[in-house]
Amino acid sequence: MDIHIDSAKPLPLYKQIAHAIIEKIAAGELQQGDTLPSIRQLAKTLQINVNTVQKSYHDLAHRGVIELPDKAKAIICRQKTQEEALQHFEEDVKLIIAEAYAAGVSRLMMEKTYKKILRKRSIN
Amino acid sequence: MDIHIDSAKPLPLYKQIAHAIIEKIAAGELQQGDTLPSIRQLAKTLQINVNTVQKSYHDLAHRGVIELPDKAKAIICRQKTQEEALQHFEEDVKLIIAEAYAAGVSRLMMEKTYKKILRKRSIN
Repeated sequence: MDIHIDSAKPLPLYKQIAHAIIEKIAAGELQQGDTLPSIRQLAKTLQINVNTVQKSYHDLAHRGVIELPDKAKAIICRQKTQEEALQHFEEDVKLIIAEAYAAGVSRLMMEKTYKKILRKRSIN
Repeated sequence: MDIHIDSAKPLPLYKQIAHAIIEKIAAGELQQGDTLPSIRQLAKTLQINVNTVQKSYHDLAHRGVIELPDKAKAIICRQKTQEEALQHFEEDVKLIIAEAYAAGVSRLMMEKTYKKILRKRSIN
């Protein structure tokens, strides 16, 4: 599995890994039932600490993106249906808006940021 | 700490607790340095499983909202600066858009949902 991380980026490495895996699912490169490299193996490949990969996998398991059996490799979960995904999207948006709002980020800045990202993805 | 949860809602209980705490921070009811009830205590108050509260606190610690010392009570972290918050916001938005996109949610639906939530909050 080809993942690029960059320790110079402001985003923590464990999040970079989680993002990369979600992007691979969005692109269809990873599908339901596919397994991920073991935590130890991915840490070795990326030359980073095992704990970082572990945190990343736990994060993904937490979000229902992968299953993390105790002694087996992580497995990509069933894709959410559109309806489920939209419900998750709504709840996540609520949460991150509340967090940004708590720190004083203006509605205008949130809208700008959101639109910028949607534009980059250029989905229909 | 006054938290309402509702097991009839589609949002998992651990997320409902995390949301409630973030909303309290946004409202200024919880501030940097304030402590949260112990996991055991909150579970007792809400009459739910200890593991659910634990998952919720870990989630918040994961997001940098609280510190979770090993044998002490959870503490509300320093509020993020606007700049930090905006950076987190941007990264979170990227991730949740990618997830929704992966499940086939349309850009239009994402925009509608986002606007609905921003409107409800009616921030400037």
